[in-house]
Amino acid sequence: MLDAVDLSRKVAKSKYKEVIPGLELRLGQLQRNARKWKIPIVVVFEGLEASGKGTQTNKLLLALDPRGFTVYPTHPANEEERRKPFLWRFWTKIPEGGRIAIFNRSWYGRFLVERMDQTITEQDWSRAYGEIRSFEKQLVDAGTVIVKFFLHISQAEQRKRFMKLQSSPSTAWRVTDYDWQKHENYRECLAVATEMLERTHSEYAPWTPLGAENWRSANMTIFRTVIDAVEARIRQLENADASARPSPPKLEKTPSGLLKKVDLSKSMKKSDYRKALKKYQARIKNLEHEVHRRRIPVVLVYEGWDAAGKGGNIKRLVENMDPRGYEVIPVAAPNDIEMDHHYLWRFWNRMPKTGHITIFDRSWYGRVLVERIEGFCSESEWKRAYREINEMEEHLTNFGAVILKFWMHVDKDEQLSRFKDRKKNPHKRWKLADEDWRNREKWDAYEKAVEEMIHRTSTPNAPWVIVESNSKYYARIRVLKTVTRKLESRLGIRH
Amino acid sequence: MLDAVDLSRKVAKSKYKEVIPGLELRLGQLQRNARKWKIPIVVVFEGLEASGKGTQTNKLLLALDPRGFTVYPTHPANEEERRKPFLWRFWTKIPEGGRIAIFNRSWYGRFLVERMDQTITEQDWSRAYGEIRSFEKQLVDAGTVIVKFFLHISQAEQRKRFMKLQSSPSTAWRVTDYDWQKHENYRECLAVATEMLERTHSEYAPWTPLGAENWRSANMTIFRTVIDAVEARIRQLENADASARPSPPKLEKTPSGLLKKVDLSKSMKKSDYRKALKKYQARIKNLEHEVHRRRIPVVLVYEGWDAAGKGGNIKRLVENMDPRGYEVIPVAAPNDIEMDHHYLWRFWNRMPKTGHITIFDRSWYGRVLVERIEGFCSESEWKRAYREINEMEEHLTNFGAVILKFWMHVDKDEQLSRFKDRKKNPHKRWKLADEDWRNREKWDAYEKAVEEMIHRTSTPNAPWVIVESNSKYYARIRVLKTVTRKLESRLGIRH
Repeated sequence: MLDAVDLSRKVAKSKYKEVIPGLELRLGQLQRNARKWKIPIVVVFEGLEASGKGTQTNKLLLALDPRGFTVYPTHPANEEERRKPFLWRFWTKIPEGGRIAIFNRSWYGRFLVERMDQTITEQDWSRAYGEIRSFEKQLVDAGTVIVKFFLHISQAEQRKRFMKLQSSPSTAWRVTDYDWQKHENYRECLAVATEMLERTHSEYAPWTPLGAENWRSANMTIFRTVIDAVEARIRQLENADASARPSPPKLEKTPSGLLKKVDLSKSMKKSDYRKALKKYQARIKNLEHEVHRRRIPVVLVYEGWDAAGKGGNIKRLVENMDPRGYEVIPVAAPNDIEMDHHYLWRFWNRMPKTGHITIFDRSWYGRVLVERIEGFCSESEWKRAYREINEMEEHLTNFGAVILKFWMHVDKDEQLSRFKDRKKNPHKRWKLADEDWRNREKWDAYEKAVEEMIHRTSTPNAPWVIVESNSKYYARIRVLKTVTRKLESRLGIRH
Repeated sequence: MLDAVDLSRKVAKSKYKEVIPGLELRLGQLQRNARKWKIPIVVVFEGLEASGKGTQTNKLLLALDPRGFTVYPTHPANEEERRKPFLWRFWTKIPEGGRIAIFNRSWYGRFLVERMDQTITEQDWSRAYGEIRSFEKQLVDAGTVIVKFFLHISQAEQRKRFMKLQSSPSTAWRVTDYDWQKHENYRECLAVATEMLERTHSEYAPWTPLGAENWRSANMTIFRTVIDAVEARIRQLENADASARPSPPKLEKTPSGLLKKVDLSKSMKKSDYRKALKKYQARIKNLEHEVHRRRIPVVLVYEGWDAAGKGGNIKRLVENMDPRGYEVIPVAAPNDIEMDHHYLWRFWNRMPKTGHITIFDRSWYGRVLVERIEGFCSESEWKRAYREINEMEEHLTNFGAVILKFWMHVDKDEQLSRFKDRKKNPHKRWKLADEDWRNREKWDAYEKAVEEMIHRTSTPNAPWVIVESNSKYYARIRVLKTVTRKLESRLGIRH
């Protein structure tokens, strides 16, 4: 793609001065319009060293209303960021509807910096192609406009710019030995960039490579490209164009009857429970330390019927653990800020760093459960979610995470008797909401959704475990045992 | 304070089992009640190494509804955190109303870790006493309940616990050489802790030192102390007790007439403006690099009348700058999440790290301007704010920040002609809101508030600069010049 870039293209100052005010006005109007339509916009500036990414970023942002954008300069990942999956620091920065996020360098540092510098393995950077494609696709499917620029200059021009920077004492420090080294390897840089551009160019998130030797020419291309992309999206929405909302993916049928087959008669005597509880809690306590020492991130997901005993189960799991190593995230309806973001954003934000255990009490699976049933998202949104969730979990396991997902299963009779108990008991009454009764009426619809969820999102690395929960004792030990064994197997500990 | 702690106090298992369920129930109820009253609660666990902070934290949180609290384990500051004032990482974690933040180790690490280890200067730790006192006072004045525990054990007990940890392979790594070294310096640790407890014990945020050799005894004290503190606060609120809301501080009178004296006839010819603009923009560009290299954080605040030209002024200031080094933060009305936090929380969140320039387009001064005038906060709140703001700015300058605050001043006639111009011009019409006309009607009240603000919050390290802005050209150069000179003087650069 870079061969086709015309590096000699120039725009005269007079021409530029004539055209640019009109473009700036249009950009300003578009930004206000995009806000009205709540369109999230992502602009990426990548390019060779000294290709003018900073200048172009500044030109663009000066044409915008500062209340509507944020600039993110991307530096090498810091301590905290290295302890999360590599897309984490970008997921947490995606814009909410109506806002623009401008990335000066970006997730493409995976290739242009980390691959080039050989600070990551080939497995890591080659896997990043797929991870980035699914990241960008997920954003675009949810309505984000992504515009990506690659600023290109010749080796000779780069040299000239380095020399100029070095000539002034306040900018000399910006050119490091390392930059010169990269300059020497110019051809190799270009080869890496070319492969990257080719493999991450897509209809939904296309690259615009451009000659950046003449900043005016580059600037005009940038303004026009952003304008075109945002205008196209607004036009789609204004015309309620069918393509404005992606259509639901076709999914194979889910076999039904899975939950009916669960053996809910399983139970446990109190004395056995006490013994097992003590034993597994002691083992979990040690495993938490080991996980911390070996820097493994652990994600545990609890989903289940209302009153299936999630809270009490989690309590037994963590009772003996060190609170510095685990966190319980109770998931309720999203707040205003969360609502304005991609639905996975709030979960990406809470993912554990290496060595930590995060327990989600309800989770992203709300998308294919309550949001599906209650119509809080569209059919194409929840149908798409299966793939998106599988991708997210895959990105986590690529990073080394252990993931376990529990479906706490009770039958309708057991739920009713627990509801009644809550109603009677003054200390438990606050736990029972009108909503619980309403959900109960939709049991059959939920059952179907749960079966489909388990069918579509059980993967070898992130399996669902159906926990027979009519007996709370049994269910607690079942979870403790499952977590213990999974961690022991991962850590290579035998018991 | 630690001499008085009875290390021999024990509670029998039977007694504990009898008492604790009742305390747990009360805690749960209190938490729901505190949520109703939107009370933010901060619990701090400090103590000697191996004194059981983790265990006690876990016992407390297990009695709580996980939807209502967050545990923050405090580690040594990471790269990012070291580039912010030391309280930054705690300010950003303060709970919103109705939530509990549990800190396992905390800002007191300033003494128990950093002072002990001599990783900070005496100036830094001795200054931290005042900074912490004002941090805690600000939170409590805004309705937060703060409960601080110091867990005390004898040197012999500490030794015993270290040995026990070392005896198991999964916990042995937790006892480092460094821990043993601290163990040897037990007396010194205790002296540092004692001074810290004495100097940060206050009526509003008292310490509870307690013997932690017997965990049951410690646990009961902790539960009871938290219950008492929260109950006392709820009682205050329920009885609409006068002390529930602090009364307005008495302030000296502000001399009036300051703004009337501003010489708004100052102006500048276009040709002079062009020349000066070029000159100062070039100097600012270099200064931005220098500031980055020397790792100085810079905070610039713009306040001013509607249509005084803040936006255009900021644009000229940053036009030639590198967007990786500066950020413009436009400040509007707080969103839901921000509303539920201390009013300074959202500003603390956005403070620059070292080497970065943050420009606030409107700021925390909204507290004593729009919030005061519109009655969005109480009289005692805005009156208290002068001190709180001065404290915040002092904490920033203690950390090395350069702070400049601009009041963009125009007269009523000039504002009217700008409003009319905006109304006429289709490209500018979106800038003019009904609110602007309403604010204009309150000109006199705002004038009084502005004069009081300037009087009370102009400090040597964070001065207000009144910018004569009837002439936009003059005002832009005035700001550019002021910033240039301030930074040059700070950096020791002569021109």
